Amino acid sequence: MNIYFACSITGGREFESVYQAIVQALVEGNHVVSTAHLTESGTVALEATIDPREVYARDIAWIRACDVLIAEVSTPSHGVGYEIGFSLGLGKPVLALFQEGRKVSKMISGNPDPNLLLKHYRTVEEAVVQAKNFLFVHDLPL
Amino acid sequence: MNIYFACSITGGREFESVYQAIVQALVEGNHVVSTAHLTESGTVALEATIDPREVYARDIAWIRACDVLIAEVSTPSHGVGYEIGFSLGLGKPVLALFQEGRKVSKMISGNPDPNLLLKHYRTVEEAVVQAKNFLFVHDLPL
Repeated sequence: MNIYFACSITGGREFESVYQAIVQALVEGNHVVSTAHLTESGTVALEATIDPREVYARDIAWIRACDVLIAEVSTPSHGVGYEIGFSLGLGKPVLALFQEGRKVSKMISGNPDPNLLLKHYRTVEEAVVQAKNFLFVHDLPL
Repeated sequence: MNIYFACSITGGREFESVYQAIVQALVEGNHVVSTAHLTESGTVALEATIDPREVYARDIAWIRACDVLIAEVSTPSHGVGYEIGFSLGLGKPVLALFQEGRKVSKMISGNPDPNLLLKHYRTVEEAVVQAKNFLFVHDLPL
């Protein structure tokens, strides 16, 4: 299955290790994660070298091609907020994950779109389980 | 004119004084700013007492009713990113303002939508001038 994993880049990388654990589990489950490289440590510097219009066009094309979008929303990010809205507009199932105790925008937590599922986690392991459960619910077993 | 001013709430209030100066100038120009109260200092605590679904429904209704959206994007925010995407989807003109030196998501800086204008400012006064220029370009003189 084709999964778009959305995470903060410009907004901050505090949860980078969580991003990496989730994507690793997805890839090990033989899913295609178009954005896998964006979870790597060097991604902020690397992405800064690419023309913004190219990044936008690439990311939008990946969202259009994906079956589901999984977003980590513990760190505020314009890009991830935009991507969640864009995906819901296309009717894609979206899972938004956040660490327990972090505040989530009400444009996400109050969003009544039935395609949007918001879940919290306490540990990295729980975050991975939530991602697996989401795929299972959408008949995309990991 | 009806203006939706989008700013970070949950994501952080570092630029609250800029939000207030922009909205004050808009209101003094006899425009209706549906979100004016969201720039006030007590807004984070106040918004926390309202049901997230109510906030979402209210904000989306305000976006649908607005002529243009002006967003301050110096502070990363899922909500503002979502609102920019939603407004562009409705074909609304959007101005995104950021303080010089702040990093902006490439989903905004690389967005080719002709309805999106991204401008930086150095001082609060410059931010207000950018907002005025944007209204002028859209035949909505302040």
